[in-house]
Amino acid sequence: MGGARWSDTLAIVREFAKVDSSIAHVFGFHHLMLATMRLFSRPDQWQPWFEQTARKNWFWGNALNPLDTRTQVKDFGGWREFSGKKSFCSGASDSEMLIASAVDESAGGKLLIAAIPSGRSGITLHNDWNNIGQRQTDSGSASFERVRVEESELLLDPGPLSTPFACLRPLIAQLTFTHMFLGIAEGAFDEARNYTLTETRAWHKSTAEHVRQDPYVLHHYGEFWVALQGVRLLVERAAALLDQAWAQGPNLSENERGQLAIAIATAKVAASRQGLELCSRLFEVTGARSTHASLRLDRHWRNLRTQSLHDPVDYKLHELGDWALNQSLPTPYLFAICQIRCRESTWTIARSSI
Amino acid sequence: MGGARWSDTLAIVREFAKVDSSIAHVFGFHHLMLATMRLFSRPDQWQPWFEQTARKNWFWGNALNPLDTRTQVKDFGGWREFSGKKSFCSGASDSEMLIASAVDESAGGKLLIAAIPSGRSGITLHNDWNNIGQRQTDSGSASFERVRVEESELLLDPGPLSTPFACLRPLIAQLTFTHMFLGIAEGAFDEARNYTLTETRAWHKSTAEHVRQDPYVLHHYGEFWVALQGVRLLVERAAALLDQAWAQGPNLSENERGQLAIAIATAKVAASRQGLELCSRLFEVTGARSTHASLRLDRHWRNLRTQSLHDPVDYKLHELGDWALNQSLPTPYLFAICQIRCRESTWTIARSSI
Amino acid sequence: MGGARWSDTLAIVREFAKVDSSIAHVFGFHHLMLATMRLFSRPDQWQPWFEQTARKNWFWGNALNPLDTRTQVKDFGGWREFSGKKSFCSGASDSEMLIASAVDESAGGKLLIAAIPSGRSGITLHNDWNNIGQRQTDSGSASFERVRVEESELLLDPGPLSTPFACLRPLIAQLTFTHMFLGIAEGAFDEARNYTLTETRAWHKSTAEHVRQDPYVLHHYGEFWVALQGVRLLVERAAALLDQAWAQGPNLSENERGQLAIAIATAKVAASRQGLELCSRLFEVTGARSTHASLRLDRHWRNLRTQSLHDPVDYKLHELGDWALNQSLPTPYLFAICQIRCRESTWTIARSSI
Amino acid sequence: MGGARWSDTLAIVREFAKVDSSIAHVFGFHHLMLATMRLFSRPDQWQPWFEQTARKNWFWGNALNPLDTRTQVKDFGGWREFSGKKSFCSGASDSEMLIASAVDESAGGKLLIAAIPSGRSGITLHNDWNNIGQRQTDSGSASFERVRVEESELLLDPGPLSTPFACLRPLIAQLTFTHMFLGIAEGAFDEARNYTLTETRAWHKSTAEHVRQDPYVLHHYGEFWVALQGVRLLVERAAALLDQAWAQGPNLSENERGQLAIAIATAKVAASRQGLELCSRLFEVTGARSTHASLRLDRHWRNLRTQSLHDPVDYKLHELGDWALNQSLPTPYLFAICQIRCRESTWTIARSSI
Repeated sequence: MGGARWSDTLAIVREFAKVDSSIAHVFGFHHLMLATMRLFSRPDQWQPWFEQTARKNWFWGNALNPLDTRTQVKDFGGWREFSGKKSFCSGASDSEMLIASAVDESAGGKLLIAAIPSGRSGITLHNDWNNIGQRQTDSGSASFERVRVEESELLLDPGPLSTPFACLRPLIAQLTFTHMFLGIAEGAFDEARNYTLTETRAWHKSTAEHVRQDPYVLHHYGEFWVALQGVRLLVERAAALLDQAWAQGPNLSENERGQLAIAIATAKVAASRQGLELCSRLFEVTGARSTHASLRLDRHWRNLRTQSLHDPVDYKLHELGDWALNQSLPTPYLFAICQIRCRESTWTIARSSI
Repeated sequence: MGGARWSDTLAIVREFAKVDSSIAHVFGFHHLMLATMRLFSRPDQWQPWFEQTARKNWFWGNALNPLDTRTQVKDFGGWREFSGKKSFCSGASDSEMLIASAVDESAGGKLLIAAIPSGRSGITLHNDWNNIGQRQTDSGSASFERVRVEESELLLDPGPLSTPFACLRPLIAQLTFTHMFLGIAEGAFDEARNYTLTETRAWHKSTAEHVRQDPYVLHHYGEFWVALQGVRLLVERAAALLDQAWAQGPNLSENERGQLAIAIATAKVAASRQGLELCSRLFEVTGARSTHASLRLDRHWRNLRTQSLHDPVDYKLHELGDWALNQSLPTPYLFAICQIRCRESTWTIARSSI
Repeated sequence: MGGARWSDTLAIVREFAKVDSSIAHVFGFHHLMLATMRLFSRPDQWQPWFEQTARKNWFWGNALNPLDTRTQVKDFGGWREFSGKKSFCSGASDSEMLIASAVDESAGGKLLIAAIPSGRSGITLHNDWNNIGQRQTDSGSASFERVRVEESELLLDPGPLSTPFACLRPLIAQLTFTHMFLGIAEGAFDEARNYTLTETRAWHKSTAEHVRQDPYVLHHYGEFWVALQGVRLLVERAAALLDQAWAQGPNLSENERGQLAIAIATAKVAASRQGLELCSRLFEVTGARSTHASLRLDRHWRNLRTQSLHDPVDYKLHELGDWALNQSLPTPYLFAICQIRCRESTWTIARSSI
Repeated sequence: MGGARWSDTLAIVREFAKVDSSIAHVFGFHHLMLATMRLFSRPDQWQPWFEQTARKNWFWGNALNPLDTRTQVKDFGGWREFSGKKSFCSGASDSEMLIASAVDESAGGKLLIAAIPSGRSGITLHNDWNNIGQRQTDSGSASFERVRVEESELLLDPGPLSTPFACLRPLIAQLTFTHMFLGIAEGAFDEARNYTLTETRAWHKSTAEHVRQDPYVLHHYGEFWVALQGVRLLVERAAALLDQAWAQGPNLSENERGQLAIAIATAKVAASRQGLELCSRLFEVTGARSTHASLRLDRHWRNLRTQSLHDPVDYKLHELGDWALNQSLPTPYLFAICQIRCRESTWTIARSSI
């Protein structure tokens, strides 16, 4: 962020994910939280936060789940109070700062987003995340008990999804996951390859003496390679487009944002599907003994499986089909909501922006 | 066995596997051990063992891994001693009796198989099984320290793989796994279905109000159904052919055994592939929240993934291709080894007979 | 029909389709026309028609496309006139008799079906069928110019889709196509196999000397085999269920018809998909020279591709998903229409009943 | 060639292939023939040929099929004679010049390649190409009857595959086909899209009023899009690498050629598979009436199917697997042969260099 291109930050997410996709997740989300401030608040707000983040090495956690409306706002004129529960708080556990959201019923269900210290009085982070994958993300729940939030901590100007540029936020989230998926698949490939070369024996019916020349093993690796290469290029192209879009700043057009959205959705579908396939199939080139629990070769499938469900592939394909057939860009969704709601001075962040 | 048809026994394996594929495994292996005695020993041996099994409710465990040659035999004239280690002893932990094997170096590496009490002096069963799937099978290792084995406990007559009928053993093992795979897939389908109907919400972009009418969810279920129906018929046909082959007894011809082997391999390939696909894909119809660890919806994939590797699908397809293209039956493998070795009065059980 | 079981008739369709799927088509449709009379008319109507068909070796063609409403009825009291055009008249060209339909606008768009001689004055059959597949079916168009139809030639009692038994007609059509698809795939497999064995050479990088031992060629044949075996069992099971349903006659229950519909749809989806895959992929085991036009190896794909589109696989899967997830039988469709319309004394045959 | 980058020439191949893949083929082969001279002959040979080609608008055809050894050379000291037959002469029919080859048995089966006028006395081009696809390529056979070839017309210095740079020839051939495959798929997509939008009606069970909003139709288009985008990037990357390799000229290293070979093989596998899938599946979004022969929508599948067999995908995957698993570059094949044979002053061009 501080000068770095998104493609560089996302390359680190991908690199982390090769080894540990939970770290990749919380690292990526830290940067997504910074982007949230950058896109939704005024320079006199986000600049000091950025400065302090760099100086004090702050880590930002997520308590912004717009679909979980249990946290409510109360306005005390000059300051507000957030009270209620919030689920899926990735990276909140060890954070210094939080991006948190709450619903203001008195303003027609308007969603307010704030940047606050994780240690502020009234905030409790529960260590209750227990899923089959992404286990170290600690994406558990949080409780807010009359947590005081200052006006200056609210991200109101320009506010979420108010412009094509502000609408980059959900796209950055999507592309972060896409890099994570590719990294998981690459890490799985590397571990499989290492295991095949050092541990796996050729099946007794193989015409090859060594497994590394077995025709079926080579065929699998060939298919893994073709799949990975395709995904790599799609992911790298989407990241390059994000760099361009980010560089445009507030001048970013609806159409440019739409093209970026298509590129990201394309990469995401490919990374999800090819990654899952590779992570499940790799055992066929490593063999029966590679299921030993100590190797944890199943974690790649579990991590990818867990994280690939928050935004169904079927509906991404629907969106892409609408583009391919009807030349209809997927922007409308978040953006339109924003457009419409802005006029009524209320807005929302839709599910896919988590 | 005691009158029951194999298709009935295997139907129970499948039924167990819907809920717990580890229990299905050890239950199936118990019957495989009984079949081992039936096929490899004399009636005056297996009949009393069968009788006592029924009367005393014995459970039989497996210590017959012919690929692990670390357990050696010493001949004391009239009795022998087994000494050494043995891996992959599924179901041995809680068993009363074991089918164990050892190599007789003095007889050119001949493999001896014996039926002995699990509690016999010198036998230690280690609880060291720790794999990503089939976790309750306790398929850990065993140690034999000068374990005395009587002549009457050795399965020498007719001995392993000596006739087409004796060659049914590895086929029964294969078909047991095939029923287990189908059961796992059916259990996964049932849990997914139940979860979709009771917990899953339609994606916000769906044209359907309820997830049960979502076009993509229905499409997945339709594909699951078609896949499962195909596998069911293949599995049931193979089981019916096994009943017929078993009824032939020693009259079973090489060709009949070969046709059965083809039917079983066909069912196994289909059950492995369609099962894995279903167990990984089911999450797309249950959604993100279904990855909660308490639901253990990942166990189906882990169990099937673990057990489907002992006999690679690629080489089953090779075998089936050889049949489809060249009309060459897969029997030769185990049977030929047996044929050849018998003349030299040595024999072996090949890998796929585990 | 005349005593023969449907499974026998359909087995012949499948057998024909191995060599010539156009002949299979018109042969199957001939029997479908007979079934139409049997199901929709009175015994004193269909019995004489059946008798003459046997005695005079009549061939029945199809001019019953309920979706093409251009042919209209005029009632002259005691007899009627059919006038207008009709498309997709498979097998009409060389037929002695036709099953034709027309719409009676004066009766609220009621569809009338009649059995009439193909040579009756006013009927012109155009030889205008020209599609990429099923080229010899002559499924061209027909014109009716004031064609006189007697009351006794109308299939009014019990009329189409009036009972679960009468609702078998569209299912018989579906299962006829399913047998045709399987036959096409089997024929394609046979030709491919023959070509591989006699003409194809091993690729110069193959480890095998002869193509019949090439690992990838065997793998393809293995996959073809597994796919074909699955489809065969699904198709044979559906045919057996049709025999049972037919034997029930008017006692057939809605639920029995529904179960049959599921079995047929399952077989049809599998036969369509696996067949198309095989017919396109077979060239990878026959090689470059097998594309010579004289071999016509592409006709299998063209025939299957053409005929598999009249009832989209996607919506069959939708139907099967509705059964698998919601236990909702697909019957309602045609049957419900019938039920509802009967009360208004009008009815229709929907698209899938062609 | 004359200044143009390969990526530009190949982009034109792709563009032609969208509409007519036969023209794309012969256009691409014309440039491949020019590259053959450039890579295998001396500047004082290829420069005049290039000049005349530009000036006189010569079209070059192919009579270089090294696997067809029926054409023999006779040396008359100072000039030679080519006599015999030759198959697969793409683009020869309407050409001014030919690249032809013949075997010199007196020199141990050495292959000689020559550039000669198509109209030279003794050359007969037969119009006997008749395959299911690429029908307008006129890839028929030719006869040479004592055709005189001058020394100055032989491509002997440096000769085929003598250096990594000279080894680019088969790679250019591969990448030409790859662009053709992508172009075919893109053309098929465009036609399908146009047909869906203008002709196809929504299935009567669709929840959508217009087919352009049908959920399954959109899903197919979404998958087509993701597949095409992946292939596009792989193809464009390979073309960019070829530009770089070509710019290196004789300095091109074995490793650089190897990396290019991997990039091209990766793109070729993806383009073949995804293209075939799209060309067969497109009918599911255009519907039954789109099989009318006048639309010729099947030609895309026939063209791609025909041309994708000359270099089997299975062995490309084998090669890629060897790279992915063993880091072994595929270069050795053609290059090694060349290396070895050069010393014995004989060489050959292997099958994949056609």
